[in-house]
This record gives sequence, C-alpha cells and structure tokens, in this order.
Amino acid sequence: MLKTRGYAAEAATTPLAPFDFDRREPGAHDVLIEILYCGVCHSDIHQARNEWENSIYPMVPGHEIVGRVARVGAEVTRFKEGDLAGVGCFVESCRTCENCKEGEEQHCLTHLVATYNGTERDEQTPTYGGYSNQIVVDENYTLKIPSNLPPENVAPLLCAGITTYSPLRRFNVGAGQRVGVVGLGGLGHMGVKLAASMGAEVTVFSTSQSKEEDARRLGAHHFVVTKDPQNLEPLAGKFHFILDTVSATHDLNMYLNLLRRDGTMVLVGAPEKPSEVPAFSLITNNRKLAGSMIGGIRETQEMLDYCAERNVSSDVEVIPIQQINEAYERTIKGDVRYRFVIDMKSL
Amino acid sequence: MLKTRGYAAEAATTPLAPFDFDRREPGAHDVLIEILYCGVCHSDIHQARNEWENSIYPMVPGHEIVGRVARVGAEVTRFKEGDLAGVGCFVESCRTCENCKEGEEQHCLTHLVATYNGTERDEQTPTYGGYSNQIVVDENYTLKIPSNLPPENVAPLLCAGITTYSPLRRFNVGAGQRVGVVGLGGLGHMGVKLAASMGAEVTVFSTSQSKEEDARRLGAHHFVVTKDPQNLEPLAGKFHFILDTVSATHDLNMYLNLLRRDGTMVLVGAPEKPSEVPAFSLITNNRKLAGSMIGGIRETQEMLDYCAERNVSSDVEVIPIQQINEAYERTIKGDVRYRFVIDMKSL
Repeated sequence: MLKTRGYAAEAATTPLAPFDFDRREPGAHDVLIEILYCGVCHSDIHQARNEWENSIYPMVPGHEIVGRVARVGAEVTRFKEGDLAGVGCFVESCRTCENCKEGEEQHCLTHLVATYNGTERDEQTPTYGGYSNQIVVDENYTLKIPSNLPPENVAPLLCAGITTYSPLRRFNVGAGQRVGVVGLGGLGHMGVKLAASMGAEVTVFSTSQSKEEDARRLGAHHFVVTKDPQNLEPLAGKFHFILDTVSATHDLNMYLNLLRRDGTMVLVGAPEKPSEVPAFSLITNNRKLAGSMIGGIRETQEMLDYCAERNVSSDVEVIPIQQINEAYERTIKGDVRYRFVIDMKSL
Repeated sequence: MLKTRGYAAEAATTPLAPFDFDRREPGAHDVLIEILYCGVCHSDIHQARNEWENSIYPMVPGHEIVGRVARVGAEVTRFKEGDLAGVGCFVESCRTCENCKEGEEQHCLTHLVATYNGTERDEQTPTYGGYSNQIVVDENYTLKIPSNLPPENVAPLLCAGITTYSPLRRFNVGAGQRVGVVGLGGLGHMGVKLAASMGAEVTVFSTSQSKEEDARRLGAHHFVVTKDPQNLEPLAGKFHFILDTVSATHDLNMYLNLLRRDGTMVLVGAPEKPSEVPAFSLITNNRKLAGSMIGGIRETQEMLDYCAERNVSSDVEVIPIQQINEAYERTIKGDVRYRFVIDMKSL
C-alpha cells in the first residue's frame, strides 16, 4: 500500500485536519498521480458536513484534481511518468451499462465510483479525494491536462468547467444566441467564460451589483441586478438559453419567463427545496426546464482540449491546505473569486 | 354581413343558449365555411365560465371546426366551393414577427387572433367560434381536411390532435422508444394513438383501472394504475418520453423519476397551481421538463395529412347542440370517450 497524507473530516461537525491513510499500489491499468492542485467545490462542504445525509467518515474531499504522473501500471498506454493528469468527480463506473457504453459514465446505472465519499467497485473500500498528496486512478478515468494553461487554473475545470460546458454544448449554444447566466460564483463564472467563448451574447443575472465589473471582465455583455424584478421585465421572451447556477432556493419562474420560443433553462445548482414551476410558463413559448450533471470522460477531455485551444480557465485563489476551513467559510459566504484551489506543496 | 346562428355564453354563470350574430362578408382571401362538426374542448368550458379570467361575452366557443367551403374570395387559391375545410385554435396572426415567419403562428409575438374569445387584428371586433353554423376565415389560416376520415372524428384533431402530435414530433418519438402518456382523456387518447402509430412502446398512466381496456384498444402496450405509487417503482429511469395531459394539479416528480437519461416530459395540460419540481429530479439523468402549445398552421396540416395516411382520428360522442350544457358537465367529470363533437345540423 502507498502511505498517503491528506486532510479529512472525521465527522460532520469537526473541522478538516491532517489525516494519514493508504492507497492501493497502482495496478496494471492504473496511474499514480502526485497531486499539484485541488479545487474546492461547494459540494465538498455539503458532504464534509453531511448536508446530503450520505457521508462516509473519515472523508478526504476533493474532485478537481490536477497533478503529475509519478508511475504507471504495466498495461497503461495513454500516460507516462511526468505527464500532467487530471481527475474529476468519479474514478470508476460499471463500464457495461448503456450509459457507460455511450460514454456517459456519470449516469452509470450500476455503480458510479465517486472520487471521494464513495466506495470502490467492491462496494466496501472507501474512496478518498484530492485533498491529499497522491491518488491512484485507472487510466480510463484519468484526463489529459493541457500544458499551456496554469495547472492551478485548470483544476476547477474538472467539475465547475464540465458542469457548465456540457449543457452549453448539449443545447447548441453559439453565435447569434442570447444566453443568461444566473449567479456568478464558481459555476457561474465558468458559464460566462465558456458561453462567451462560444460566441453567445451573455447576460449575467446577479443579486449583487458589486459583481458587474467582474462579469464584464469575464466576458459578459450585459449585467442585470435581480433584486428589483422590474429590471427583468423588458427581457421577457428574449433568451435562447439560461444557465442557472444558483443552489440557494430561488424563483425559477422569473427566469423561465425570459426564454423565447423553444428556449431552455438548465439547472446545474441544486436547491434543497423543490421549486414551484407553473405549467403555463413552460407551455408559453414551448419552453424547457432541464437539469445537467457534470459530463462523461470523453466530454470532459473534449472540454479540457477546448479550453486549452481557447485559453479558457478558472479564476482562482490559491491557498495552502492549512487554510481549508477558513476557505470553506468564505465559500459559503460567496467570498471567493471564483474558486479556491489548494496548493498541495503546502501539505 | 352574414347572419349567423350559434350558441353562446352570455356570462360566466349562465348556460349556453341560442345566439344570433353577424360575421363579415368573405374578403378576397377569405373562405366561408359551412360548419358540419365542432369538437368540445375542455378549454371551451374554462373560458365560457371565465376560469382563466380573460373572458369576453357573449362568447361563442369552439375551436375544433370541420366544415365544407360554401364560398371563396376572389384571390383564394387553395380552396374551392365544396371542399372540406378545418379551423383550429386561431384564425389570424401578425404574419411578420419571427415566430409567424417561421410558421409557428401559435406563438405570435404581436397578436394571435384566437378563434373565439379574442379580437380580430383591429383589437376590437370580437371573434366567435365554432358552435355556429358558419365561419369566415382567411385561407392561410384554414386547413385542408382529408376526405378519407369521418369529419366528426377529424374535428378534435384541430386542437387535441395537434397538441399531442407537435411535442411527439419535436422530441423525435419513434420506434424503439418507451413512451408514457399520463391521463386518458381527450388529449391522452390522441397521445396514445399517435405515439403508437409512430412505433413507440406506449404505457398509459391513469388513476382509473376502468380505462385499461380502452387504453389497449387505442394502442397502448401497458397500463399502470397510479393510485398506488408502488406500481411506478419498477419503471424508474425507463422512459424516453412522457406526455402529461392532466390538467388537475398532480405530482410531476413521480413521473420525472421514470425518465431515462436525456428523457423529456412534456406538459400539455395546465394545472391551475404551480407544480413542485425538485432540481435533483432534473439533474439526475439530465432530464427535461417542457411545455407545448398546439402547433402552427404548417404543422397542423402535416398532422392532418399524417392522420389521413395512418387512419388515425379521434374517438367521439356526437351530440346535438341542444345537449351542450349537459356535455360540459360530463366533460368535467371525465365522462366522455373521448371527445364530444357537436353535429351542427342540429342547430
């Protein structure tokens, strides 16, 4: 076994603290990755604190992982020692269900092995995430990381990037389209960058006037403060696509009304409580309300290659791991522009 | 002006009664249609009783109209005296907005002229519907009615038919797909017939066991009684498409959970109260919840031609107009298999 250092939550109510654990020796198809950076996703906090009521402790969070390959198994063909490599939200799946076969492993019908707070395919061995110095992953679930982008800015692409890229692609967002992005946080700022890079005319909807300058710097063409619903009235029926990244409970109908005929609003944040949706808001203009969850390995690689080509990556604040608990508090307050990334040298 | 006989509601609380009124003389582009049959849509009742709070009285309802051309204007090219002709939910639109130009007049951005309970393009002259002996409509808003189907069975296609056909087409329903139809009323029975005719494997979801025999006769392959939610559990994640035709408030989430990856549920009924939709139900499997409203003239003609070719039409109970108030009460109770159609000879 490989002695590994990390940070873990021992229970829902304890702060993250240093934690030593073992990882498996790399098998024939495995890659051993020395972790350079790991992003801090809001879902790390939900799970560390058992807010989704499915937590396994001790928990080493982290699923926005970028590192360097330190060793490869005998059968590995896609990676070699020294390569940059990435790991996202899952590290295995059944490989045999229809979703896995179609390259949509994130919807595996049998057993998606989450990068942390999950179990390996044996349904017993817990998985530990990227707040650690190394990780062992099958090469088929490992991403190639472009070398032309700073790796700390790439890390958040593995969750925030693919979560926003996938629906933008699935609904064919592009030039000539008006796209709204609701909320300017970790997901929202990637939504703005990606939608703008695809040629869309982007409007950011935010409760906070203070984010206008950032929104425009990130690529938004318009900025609407949503505290006053009157600001939205002239925009009714104008949008082809709206990406809703807000995970606090909020009024969806206000945004549905902005969609034009055949327009789509996609939820990538998951408010705790159900939202009230009037049928008339969907029937008018044949609107669609959809959900979207990360992406498969193939699409995640496509997104990384796209970002490399367009020079798109995340705006980050790099922190030493010793500041992780403070970073959690600031993330909850929305006080981060726009993603904390842990520099694993600090471990 | 043309002296016209019909039945009208004089107020929200009065029964429908005989009513004489004038229609315009046919203009150069108009068709005068002698009405043979008019379907009774649930929305006729909502509007006659001002349940949508937008009623104009006196109101002559009816937007599922089939008749015979009695006269044509000088410039009319598509119809001649003696042709069968149909009129659906609208009789004019602005013709210049982007939706009209794209043949989606039902979503006209300026002024959709409803067949009844609306105003002409002058925004003053009230429109009167199909519970009458004749109607005058521009030929561009008049449908060709196939002659190989009984006209009384065709009438409901003008609303119930297109309302179900349009979303089935838009979401590419076809062979190899599992399709659910929620509710077996006027819309639902057309949904079953059309989805089955397109090659889908159709499951009807109904609160009433008594409809199983009918459902299977209409083309359904499976029938699920929804009073016991346990009946739905084994079907989770199985459906490509669900057409929800129920306009009473009901639990959407129960059906959303039946959708497989990238599956879509379309609402064509409009419950009065908003429905609670949990984001997780949409994010899981990248599901879509959509709405759909009738269809444009081009698609309505396509639907009529499709039905003629496949020998698909509505199951109806033909009534004399003197029974309209009783028919309303029976429609409200769901006591009709599956659409009342008024034989206008009775007028």
